[in-house]
Amino acid sequence: MLIESLRKEVLEANLEIVRRGLVMYTFGNASGYSPEDGLVAIKPSGVPFDKLRPGDMVVTDLDGKIVEGTLRPSSDLDTHLEIYRNFEGVLGVVHTHSTYAVAWAQARREIPCFGTTHADYFHGSVPVTEALDDGEIEEAYERNIGRAIVRRLEGIDPLTRPGILVASHGPFAWGTSAGKAAMNAVLLEEIARMAALTLGINAEAKAIGGALHDQHFLRKHGPGARYGQG
Amino acid sequence: MLIESLRKEVLEANLEIVRRGLVMYTFGNASGYSPEDGLVAIKPSGVPFDKLRPGDMVVTDLDGKIVEGTLRPSSDLDTHLEIYRNFEGVLGVVHTHSTYAVAWAQARREIPCFGTTHADYFHGSVPVTEALDDGEIEEAYERNIGRAIVRRLEGIDPLTRPGILVASHGPFAWGTSAGKAAMNAVLLEEIARMAALTLGINAEAKAIGGALHDQHFLRKHGPGARYGQG
Amino acid sequence: MLIESLRKEVLEANLEIVRRGLVMYTFGNASGYSPEDGLVAIKPSGVPFDKLRPGDMVVTDLDGKIVEGTLRPSSDLDTHLEIYRNFEGVLGVVHTHSTYAVAWAQARREIPCFGTTHADYFHGSVPVTEALDDGEIEEAYERNIGRAIVRRLEGIDPLTRPGILVASHGPFAWGTSAGKAAMNAVLLEEIARMAALTLGINAEAKAIGGALHDQHFLRKHGPGARYGQG
Amino acid sequence: MLIESLRKEVLEANLEIVRRGLVMYTFGNASGYSPEDGLVAIKPSGVPFDKLRPGDMVVTDLDGKIVEGTLRPSSDLDTHLEIYRNFEGVLGVVHTHSTYAVAWAQARREIPCFGTTHADYFHGSVPVTEALDDGEIEEAYERNIGRAIVRRLEGIDPLTRPGILVASHGPFAWGTSAGKAAMNAVLLEEIARMAALTLGINAEAKAIGGALHDQHFLRKHGPGARYGQG
Repeated sequence: MLIESLRKEVLEANLEIVRRGLVMYTFGNASGYSPEDGLVAIKPSGVPFDKLRPGDMVVTDLDGKIVEGTLRPSSDLDTHLEIYRNFEGVLGVVHTHSTYAVAWAQARREIPCFGTTHADYFHGSVPVTEALDDGEIEEAYERNIGRAIVRRLEGIDPLTRPGILVASHGPFAWGTSAGKAAMNAVLLEEIARMAALTLGINAEAKAIGGALHDQHFLRKHGPGARYGQG
Repeated sequence: MLIESLRKEVLEANLEIVRRGLVMYTFGNASGYSPEDGLVAIKPSGVPFDKLRPGDMVVTDLDGKIVEGTLRPSSDLDTHLEIYRNFEGVLGVVHTHSTYAVAWAQARREIPCFGTTHADYFHGSVPVTEALDDGEIEEAYERNIGRAIVRRLEGIDPLTRPGILVASHGPFAWGTSAGKAAMNAVLLEEIARMAALTLGINAEAKAIGGALHDQHFLRKHGPGARYGQG
Repeated sequence: MLIESLRKEVLEANLEIVRRGLVMYTFGNASGYSPEDGLVAIKPSGVPFDKLRPGDMVVTDLDGKIVEGTLRPSSDLDTHLEIYRNFEGVLGVVHTHSTYAVAWAQARREIPCFGTTHADYFHGSVPVTEALDDGEIEEAYERNIGRAIVRRLEGIDPLTRPGILVASHGPFAWGTSAGKAAMNAVLLEEIARMAALTLGINAEAKAIGGALHDQHFLRKHGPGARYGQG
Repeated sequence: MLIESLRKEVLEANLEIVRRGLVMYTFGNASGYSPEDGLVAIKPSGVPFDKLRPGDMVVTDLDGKIVEGTLRPSSDLDTHLEIYRNFEGVLGVVHTHSTYAVAWAQARREIPCFGTTHADYFHGSVPVTEALDDGEIEEAYERNIGRAIVRRLEGIDPLTRPGILVASHGPFAWGTSAGKAAMNAVLLEEIARMAALTLGINAEAKAIGGALHDQHFLRKHGPGARYGQG
């Protein structure tokens, strides 16, 4: 992919999470990965969204070495990179502090699959990472967040769980492009909101059964998908 | 009714549920039924709302055979058809994943009639369907949702309960036109929100009595209605 | 007051409750009273707010006899009239189905004065009416709602409690003009929202003491008021 | 600082808290302090925000003596002054009745640091003042609120806790300028909202540990900060 296109797509994903109300001030970032080039484009750190231009996106290699760009990359870059290095097929990552997803992350509770809106996009609960220990926090913190994410999804196809809650922090979402990652971040916030309200109505609410879960996930994903214009 | 008018009305109902905030992305659909022709017009599957034109509405007969249109119909078509085949006088159906109605559906709780906003539009609680069994989920899923809806309302005039919660899924609403169905979907969401907040304030809140319920429902509906400009 | 001015002010109050998000569809109404003429202007029943013009306001005397206007008045007219006939100094009344105030009305709980936002406008809790009995519901329903309001405030200066929750229904607010009544309806909704959230954080939250309550109410109201530009 | 600039900055901070949805009607005020001149500029009392001009800001000395301006200052002036007199480095103060922060203040609960959004801006919980006694309420009320704030933060660098909840009332926030104070008021509201939702999901949620708290606070504040473009 041309770096120019990647930058534009990444900028657009950053703007999308603002438009959808997931971001206040500069609390969020989107990146995209081009596997042919081995390059990642990411939002610069602490720059207001309304001032961002494609050329402000910082381009690095998978080790975080800056290849193009004069600004400092998002402080969460190392988390994004750890995800790209480990999750086959993931070409976009988004991090936000969206309100309801943060609330679940702070509650340190997985989001059970209470219904079909969830099942349409997540094949299973929305997982929560383990807490980091003090050593992991004090040294290489952002990379260790990435490692905790990767560890939690061990043995799971990350495209069937396109997001996670980092304990006491907030959501990361991903997908097959920066735009899809942004969409998954939006969906995760709505799923988190619906689930919180569900518990408020019925504290004993139960996750749905496997047949219903599969029916929904598989009608939107994989070879048998039959949703949309095909 | 001219098919052309039906399509326009159905498009308008689809746009209304977006404007009222019931829909994110493509998660919702409205249809309308013309009994003289035996034809149904419905939103196409997975097409963004802001791109819809009247000619995109898919027209089918009551068995789901496409009569006009080049796009695939909403994947929920079979649920809409089951409703039209069984509910006398229902000429419009709307399905959404609106947040509070979904929360009640996920909680698998009927919405008790806690007050007059509810009583003005639903003569009784807002019902929830029984869960489908695995066989019903795996084969003819959408039609079986329709059957569960019809079963739950057996012996009830569907125009006195113009909506239902499909268990672990979300709301369907209906009415004497696509536009009325959209309005009932909006009202159902607000009723669901008020009821969730009521429980948060008083977990022991009780449904209102029959005299108050009748007074409100009947002042807006039926031969004795005295609301509006008459 | 010229009837022409009263109509304009009443129209403006009706539009204000829409702009402030208290009203969906036609669920709300504002009226104003001119004691010199003994006349009341009120919103017509079931007319969409965006079509209202000053000349659509229906003018009646205090017994509800229509003096000017070709439309039917709001079905809640008799409640408004009962308030004007009994509450000295009240020249505006507003009824809405605003979400949080309805939730408290449906919960059938008074809103305790949990803090100074409340104390700035209500000198005491926000009261709830007693439920009507079946006879009161079946005959002269709207007038009986007004009577229940008046009964609940017996011995209380209505301008120190400029609103009430009608049990299982929703709020009525009032003031020294239609505009002030609209403002009190907005404040009541916000007070109801804050109080519901307060209970969610601390189910044992207590009403504030008398000294703090007086300090706030009296700095905004009455002869010693020292808020604003005086 | 030129008084002219201070006034503009204070006006802008007042408008910012409106734009961010923290304020209804005239329920909020921002001020700024210029230590070189010993002067404070503050919003006038009870003037609608949309009519404010820089010249309307009231300029006083640290004892509250009006130096410039023809309007009455905000009734909360004495609280602002008490903060400036006692909190070294604080050059801006904002008071609002934002909904979630008020709910915590009314619940009279400190906001525990449940996650990193909070830790990024508050080094510790968001404190609540002690209730004032009747004497403190009846005499020099606003100044006594300021004293309760100062007392509660005794021994704490106020720039590491840039806000507080006044018991049964609402939030005050501050910072190194009026604009920063406004931003801290916005963040406090969001932190309060996230924390309330966290408790709704898990009533046993616990504050985060010291290592995570420090990592976040110190990456945005102090000599080792590495967030933004540095």
